[in-house]
Amino acid sequence: MLHLNLCHIRKLYRVLTIACLFTAAAGYRHVSKTAAKTLDEFDYDGPLMKTEVPGPKSRVRGDVLVFLQNVGAVHFFCNYEESRGNYLVDADGNRMLDLYTQISSIPIGYNHPALMKVLAKPHNLSAFVNRPALGILPPENYPERLMESLLSVAPRGMSRVQTMSCGSCSNENAFKSMFIWYRNKERGHNEPSQEELNSCMINQGPGCPDLSILSFMGAFHGRTMGCLATTHSKSIHKLDVPSFDWPIAPFPKLRYPLEEFVRENAQEEARCLEEVEDLIVKWRQKGKMVAGIVVEPIQSEGGDNHASPDFFRKLRSIARKHGCAFHVDEVQTGCGPTGKFWAHEHWGLDDPADIVSFSKKMLTGGYFHKDELMADKPYRIFNTWMGDPSKNVFLTEVLNVIKTEHLLEEATRSGKALLQGLYELQVQGGDGRRYHRGFGRCFKQLFSPQAQYPHLLSAARGVGTFCAIDARDDATRNSLISKARDKGVILGGCGEKSIRFRPALVFKEYHVHLFLNIFNDVLAEHKVFRFRQKGFVPAEETLKVN
Amino acid sequence: MLHLNLCHIRKLYRVLTIACLFTAAAGYRHVSKTAAKTLDEFDYDGPLMKTEVPGPKSRVRGDVLVFLQNVGAVHFFCNYEESRGNYLVDADGNRMLDLYTQISSIPIGYNHPALMKVLAKPHNLSAFVNRPALGILPPENYPERLMESLLSVAPRGMSRVQTMSCGSCSNENAFKSMFIWYRNKERGHNEPSQEELNSCMINQGPGCPDLSILSFMGAFHGRTMGCLATTHSKSIHKLDVPSFDWPIAPFPKLRYPLEEFVRENAQEEARCLEEVEDLIVKWRQKGKMVAGIVVEPIQSEGGDNHASPDFFRKLRSIARKHGCAFHVDEVQTGCGPTGKFWAHEHWGLDDPADIVSFSKKMLTGGYFHKDELMADKPYRIFNTWMGDPSKNVFLTEVLNVIKTEHLLEEATRSGKALLQGLYELQVQGGDGRRYHRGFGRCFKQLFSPQAQYPHLLSAARGVGTFCAIDARDDATRNSLISKARDKGVILGGCGEKSIRFRPALVFKEYHVHLFLNIFNDVLAEHKVFRFRQKGFVPAEETLKVN
Repeated sequence: MLHLNLCHIRKLYRVLTIACLFTAAAGYRHVSKTAAKTLDEFDYDGPLMKTEVPGPKSRVRGDVLVFLQNVGAVHFFCNYEESRGNYLVDADGNRMLDLYTQISSIPIGYNHPALMKVLAKPHNLSAFVNRPALGILPPENYPERLMESLLSVAPRGMSRVQTMSCGSCSNENAFKSMFIWYRNKERGHNEPSQEELNSCMINQGPGCPDLSILSFMGAFHGRTMGCLATTHSKSIHKLDVPSFDWPIAPFPKLRYPLEEFVRENAQEEARCLEEVEDLIVKWRQKGKMVAGIVVEPIQSEGGDNHASPDFFRKLRSIARKHGCAFHVDEVQTGCGPTGKFWAHEHWGLDDPADIVSFSKKMLTGGYFHKDELMADKPYRIFNTWMGDPSKNVFLTEVLNVIKTEHLLEEATRSGKALLQGLYELQVQGGDGRRYHRGFGRCFKQLFSPQAQYPHLLSAARGVGTFCAIDARDDATRNSLISKARDKGVILGGCGEKSIRFRPALVFKEYHVHLFLNIFNDVLAEHKVFRFRQKGFVPAEETLKVN
Repeated sequence: MLHLNLCHIRKLYRVLTIACLFTAAAGYRHVSKTAAKTLDEFDYDGPLMKTEVPGPKSRVRGDVLVFLQNVGAVHFFCNYEESRGNYLVDADGNRMLDLYTQISSIPIGYNHPALMKVLAKPHNLSAFVNRPALGILPPENYPERLMESLLSVAPRGMSRVQTMSCGSCSNENAFKSMFIWYRNKERGHNEPSQEELNSCMINQGPGCPDLSILSFMGAFHGRTMGCLATTHSKSIHKLDVPSFDWPIAPFPKLRYPLEEFVRENAQEEARCLEEVEDLIVKWRQKGKMVAGIVVEPIQSEGGDNHASPDFFRKLRSIARKHGCAFHVDEVQTGCGPTGKFWAHEHWGLDDPADIVSFSKKMLTGGYFHKDELMADKPYRIFNTWMGDPSKNVFLTEVLNVIKTEHLLEEATRSGKALLQGLYELQVQGGDGRRYHRGFGRCFKQLFSPQAQYPHLLSAARGVGTFCAIDARDDATRNSLISKARDKGVILGGCGEKSIRFRPALVFKEYHVHLFLNIFNDVLAEHKVFRFRQKGFVPAEETLKVN
């Protein structure tokens, strides 16, 4: 048995860090041999890189697509047929461990056998070939389908669900539901006046009332014009598009780790909540009543900004107090990544919300709502497709897999390992030691090529695998993501300088270690590069220069 | 050979009408035995009704669904697996000839063999199982898929396409493209100012400018909040939802048939065009520049309101003159029902539009646009899914079938027969005779059970199978639709009192005759019912009363 004290650990770390620098600089094989091998049959056993990314085949395709679309956001082209589990394969045959999963929208990995089987069953096929107008002509099995899929995971207090085609449509219609509910309350549930019916036809009040939705700075709720009026994450999303004069409250800017800054964070949250109430009153005085409040359990696009359960409990109370509907947007947080099916379950409320919207991992857009938020008449919340039953067929299977493979527990377990690893990468010296649980972990860490990069990384945070970490700045973040990709790991950015982790629910602890090894290499190389820029060149490198 | 003059024809018509009244009242078999039998293998050979609609099985399902959703708009529940070609089968086994096709969204009939084959090909399956974030990680075959599907039917002057998930999202993003294009012009294609970037984050100008889209009364462009500000068809769509102060022009209220009222209609169109120009100037003076004009080639939800090609040519010129983008919304008219792939092709313009949006029969939402309407930067027009490649796989097959089975010609041919039949049902005495082409048609008609219902029907109109007819009033329209359904024909309503016909592109001439026979029965029964209300009871009926 090996006995080490803190001093030993620090020394060994330093040695390992330097060793790592050299090996990385010399083309160190980025896939750690220590990665566990107990992979499921539909998963690959590790990344496999053949070219840089985007490789030549992706580039050729990009050169064609550029004539058809703006391709400025395209990363590379994918071979979805060859992708499996946690691994996305690109057009050049590069196989990458995917921690971004199509902007957090692949629930149980690529080509999951359970989903492939859906298409092998003849009785499922008509759902794909004949897309119905769900609001008028639902399939005969539709009530059962809803119950075995969406209703089986209905948030507390909600027994009604309306599907939609995408996240934006879900939020738009959720907003409309709140406006309709609010006006019905105001008119005492009487029929609308002729003046209302006439004026709304020409976009004027009282038929089109001056109601508003309160949202938060940093929020992202979609890009259609109603949603966009509540989205405040990046200017490029909003520039040049007309908007509504709706109230925007500050979202708490917390310090991480949350457990360490409880008092400061509580103060910051109180400040924001006070502002919320002030804005509701101010808008009421302007004659623009706040019909609803919309909030994400974790602001995702805006930079993975967290708030405490206490904040959300109080916010929910403020909504109730002022007669505003409370809409929780779980488009990105929903369907398990936080270790609970809905992120708002972490708040521990019996009556968490009036509306909960979803999309992405749920495969179909839509929203759950309380009885009273149901539109009073048909055709008020309506469109041609109103979702897509073929997505419900897949969702039923996804929910089965989540249940039978205990994927929520998996997300909790993997998430803990991921966050722990991120803490270890960001901490300086002893600061991070508090996260080491016992000798075993210290020992393991000493012999893993992990190093500490406090100058590069900070503010590791997360619930389940829904984690993020801040890079030093935007350029560093982008460079780290790009280098990780070349080494076989797909990451996403969010906010100004954050890296977000959005693996599928089949992302297991050994995937975490695989990722951490590779990410460590990336960070190590970044360090070398930085030293080089400053004039420091490791010995082996000097030889190579000649 | 039988020789008949006009007098004979009138007499025979009268006899047939009365005979028809009696047989209909006595439970006349509604499926005409004269319907042609040369049906494709995937079609049924006629309606087959077992219960009223909704039948008991639909009702039971409705009683369940009511606990989950507002079911006020649900007609009945469908057995999509058993549906074929032009026939929709319901949960009770009733088989109906479908002239509404899921609000005009089934292009080539139910369970078309070509679409079923798509799902039998293993290499197609990953497109269904792994829905990508198209804007960042498109499938490797995506450029080819776009070219063989959407780009193969690109409207004149447009080589770029952006897919979206549904019609509303398509129009919302088309509007955003117009706003971005307009502001880029205004700022001389320079970078936005810091003030713009900052102000847009809080929904304020100059970053969120006070731009507008001009739309028409009676228009329908969707139900999300940007679209809804351009939708003016029914108050129930708009009531209680905040809107934008955007200009709304009158849409021509034409008299039908168009060929008969050329002079009056031209005057009406001139009046509307003048108003369009006035509104653009007025809004400019208000500081709310009109960035774009959006229009449907035929106002569909608003009541199948037509305007002449000349109107649209002039409208397009007005848009150009005032520097507004011209957006043609082909969500309902596109993909062939008018006999041309896009309805705007009937205008005969080389440069018909800047943007053409689509959805419904195209299976995927999206819009074509000219080069200059492409957003200047990535992530300005963006969302997670940006469409669904699995829909493109089906669309490729749909376009193949349209081409190989000459379905545009079919729509023209069937449409002519349908419109002719509608004229004949609505005309009084000799008025309709001008539409009879030669002796053969007169002869055929004499021995069909068609009658004339000028007191019930008027204003038959249409291009291709995209036809409509007005009922006397809303109640009559609804009653006719409901009775037709009980006799095995599905129709849709639109506007205040119109019936719209939206069959699939595989709707052939013999389906037209099958429909006309049944519809004639419905009208005949309606006549009886009306007489009965007035105290008139045909002889056979008197016997039955006792």
